[in-house]
Amino acid sequence: MVDRARSADRIAAEIDTLSGPDFTLSDEAIRRYAYTEPYRRTLDHFTGALEALDFDVYEDPVGTLVARNRPAGEPVFGIGSHCDSNRNGGRYDGTMGVVTALEVCRLNAELGLDLPLQLISFLEEEGSGFGQMLLGSRIMLERVTEEELRETFLAVDDGRSFWEHAEDAGYEPARWRECGRVLDDLTGWIEMHIEQARVLQDTGNRIGIVSAIAGYVHADVRIRGRGDHAGATPMDLRLDPTLPLAETIVELERLARAAGGGTVGTVGELEADPGLINAIAAEVRLSLDIRGPDDDRFQGVARDVGAFATVAAERRGMTADVTPRQTLAATRLDPGVVAALEEAAAATGEPAMTMHSGAAHDTMCVAARVPSAMVFVPCRDGISHHPAEHAEPADAALAAEIMLNAIVALTR
Amino acid sequence: MVDRARSADRIAAEIDTLSGPDFTLSDEAIRRYAYTEPYRRTLDHFTGALEALDFDVYEDPVGTLVARNRPAGEPVFGIGSHCDSNRNGGRYDGTMGVVTALEVCRLNAELGLDLPLQLISFLEEEGSGFGQMLLGSRIMLERVTEEELRETFLAVDDGRSFWEHAEDAGYEPARWRECGRVLDDLTGWIEMHIEQARVLQDTGNRIGIVSAIAGYVHADVRIRGRGDHAGATPMDLRLDPTLPLAETIVELERLARAAGGGTVGTVGELEADPGLINAIAAEVRLSLDIRGPDDDRFQGVARDVGAFATVAAERRGMTADVTPRQTLAATRLDPGVVAALEEAAAATGEPAMTMHSGAAHDTMCVAARVPSAMVFVPCRDGISHHPAEHAEPADAALAAEIMLNAIVALTR
Repeated sequence: MVDRARSADRIAAEIDTLSGPDFTLSDEAIRRYAYTEPYRRTLDHFTGALEALDFDVYEDPVGTLVARNRPAGEPVFGIGSHCDSNRNGGRYDGTMGVVTALEVCRLNAELGLDLPLQLISFLEEEGSGFGQMLLGSRIMLERVTEEELRETFLAVDDGRSFWEHAEDAGYEPARWRECGRVLDDLTGWIEMHIEQARVLQDTGNRIGIVSAIAGYVHADVRIRGRGDHAGATPMDLRLDPTLPLAETIVELERLARAAGGGTVGTVGELEADPGLINAIAAEVRLSLDIRGPDDDRFQGVARDVGAFATVAAERRGMTADVTPRQTLAATRLDPGVVAALEEAAAATGEPAMTMHSGAAHDTMCVAARVPSAMVFVPCRDGISHHPAEHAEPADAALAAEIMLNAIVALTR
Repeated sequence: MVDRARSADRIAAEIDTLSGPDFTLSDEAIRRYAYTEPYRRTLDHFTGALEALDFDVYEDPVGTLVARNRPAGEPVFGIGSHCDSNRNGGRYDGTMGVVTALEVCRLNAELGLDLPLQLISFLEEEGSGFGQMLLGSRIMLERVTEEELRETFLAVDDGRSFWEHAEDAGYEPARWRECGRVLDDLTGWIEMHIEQARVLQDTGNRIGIVSAIAGYVHADVRIRGRGDHAGATPMDLRLDPTLPLAETIVELERLARAAGGGTVGTVGELEADPGLINAIAAEVRLSLDIRGPDDDRFQGVARDVGAFATVAAERRGMTADVTPRQTLAATRLDPGVVAALEEAAAATGEPAMTMHSGAAHDTMCVAARVPSAMVFVPCRDGISHHPAEHAEPADAALAAEIMLNAIVALTR
C-alpha cells in the first residue's frame, strides 16, 4: 500500500534541501547546531512541512521541536530524531531520522490512516554547540542540573553559557523543568537513524531493529615507568611503561572477545611522555572505551582490564592507575515495540536483522519513560560524522513503511 | 702521586664558575650554545686557564677550541669534550669533560710530567644552536657538505644559516675543510663524559671505560587500519591498528633481549590518529630506537621488528610501513687505549667496569682518525639533559688521574 519509490524521492528531496548553503555554517560539511541561523532555518523548514499536514508545531522551553496531530492530553505515538549535526558532519546523521519521521506523517495523511502521531526533533544531540551530547533529551529527563545549564555548559564558539544563548534565541530556559511534558502523552517511541557502523552493510541487511543501546565505561589508564636514555639504559635496568601498555591493549581485545554478547573494547588514545624517539617514556596513557548491551559483561571487561593493567605494571616494577571518566548503563528497549517492528520488517520481505546500537542516541533518555525502539539503515562503509557520510533514501523509505506499519499494529 | 681531593676541589670550583649567570642564557637551566655570549665567555674562561699553563690556544675556522703544549707538527695526545649544553641542560654534560681535561693539564704541570697534550672543546655537540648533533666533530671529519653549512643548517632561534652565524661571530666558515687538521698530530684521544644512564650507579662502579659507542637505527612504523565507531563496530568487523602496534612493542623487547650484547630497543613515540576515546584509530605510529655496540645484532633486531610489524598487521588485514629516519654504525674504540685506561683504573683500586656507550659522542668522529677511548663517571639516577643532572667532582678527579696515568703509559 506504500509507494516506496515516491517516499524515497521525497526523502531524497528533503535531504537535498537541508544540505544547501542556508542550512549549514560550513562550505565543506554540514555544521548545524542550536541557536544558529542554519539551525533556525532547519526548524522552520520542518515546521512548514508539518503545518502543511495540519500538525500543531511548538518548541519546548529550550528549543526541541514538537509537532502533533492530536490535542495535548490525548495519547500519541512518538517518532523523530535530531537535526543538529556534528561540526564536521554529513547529511544523514539525525536529519534523515527527522525526515523519515516526516515521511511517516505524510504517509499517514495520504493513506488516510489518521494515526495519532507526535514528531520530536531533539536539541543538541551531537553536542556541537555546548560540548554536551544528548542535551535536549537529557534536559527532558532532568539528567542535568540547573547549575550546569546556567554556568557549566558553555558554548564551544564563544564560551558564553547555554542559558544565555537559549535566552538570546528567544527561549525560556528558566522553564527547563517543563521540557519533560513533551513525553507525557506518548504511548510509544520509534527513532530512525543511520547505523554509523558497518554491520548492516557487511551482513547485507537493509534494516536493523534496535533492541538495546550499549552502555559504556570511558576511562584512562596511566602507567608510570622511569624516563631514561633510550640508548644508554640496558634492557634489564629499564622501567619502560610502553610494555604494560602494549600488554593491556592485547588483553583488552581478548577480554572483549571472551565476554561476547556484543561487548567491544577500544583503545583510541595513546600518549607517551615525553614522547621522544630517543627517550624511554616516563609515563604513558591509554584510553579505554568499553561498551555493550549487557551491563554485567562490559563492566566486567572494564574491571578486568584495569586489574590486568595494574598487575602488568607491577610485575615489571611500575605502577598503573585507572581513572574513570564516565559510565553509562545499557538501555534495553521495549520488547513490544521491537516485536512490532520485526513483524513489520518481515512483512516487507526485505533483509532485516535485530541488533543493538553501539552508539548513544536520544532514545536512551526517552526509553526511561516511554516504550521505545529504534530502526537503523545502513550507512556506506560505516562512515559517519564526516562529509563523506552516505545513506540511501530508498532504505529510509523502507524504514518509514516499517515504522508506519508497526505504529498501526501498536496503536490498534 | 695525585692529590685527588685537590683535583676534586678544582673541578668543583670550575663547574661552579661555569654554572653562574654569565655562562647560561636561562635562569633555570644551563643553556649555552655556539655563537652566544655565554658560550663565548666559556671559551674565554678555558682559554685563560690554559694559557696560564703555557698552552697555545686557538679556535678552528668554525669555533672549536684547541689548546696544545707542543708546536704544530709535533705529536700530542688529545683530551677534551664539549662545553655547549642541551637547551634545558645541567652543569655536567660535556662541560665536566672539558674541566676534567683541564685538570689533566694542571696535573701534568704540577707533577712535572711534561706530557704532550692537546685539549679540544668541540663546537655544537648537543645541536642546541642549529639542531645538528656532533656538528663540530662532523665538520672535522667532513661528514657534512658545504651546502648544508651554507643553507640547510639553520639556527633554531632565528632561522639564519650556520654559515652566517659563524661569520658574524668572526669565524671563517669558508675554510671549514681545514678543521680536520686539528686531528693531524694526535697519537690518541680520550674523552671523559658523564654516563647519562644508570649502569654505573646501579652496579656500584665509579668509573666506566668505554670500549665501543653504540650505533643505532631510528625509524617509524606506521600501521593503517580502518577508523570506525568504537561502540558500533563489533570485534569481528574491526581493523584496529593499535593491536599490531601493541604486538610490535612486546616483540621489540623480546628481540632486543634475545640479541644480547648490549642491544636495546625502545618505542619512545606513540601516536593514534584521530586519537579520540570513542573512535577506533585509522592509523597509528610508533617510533623505533634500536641500538647497540654490535652492528649485526642491532641491525638484525631492526630488520626483524620491521618484518614482524608488517606480518602482525597483515595477519589482521592491515598494512604496515617501516620508514627509516637515520642509521649510524657502531664505533669500536681502540683496544690499546682501552687497555691503558683499564690498567690505570685497576691501579687506583676503585670500582670500575668496561662498558659501551649507548649515547653518541664526538669521540665517534675522532675515532675514525685517531686511536680513541672514553671514560664515564656516574650521574645521579641517570638524569641528564635536565637541570637536575648531578655528577660528583670526586669521580671526575678519579677519572683525571686514570686518564693521566693512561696517557703516561701510552706516550712512554
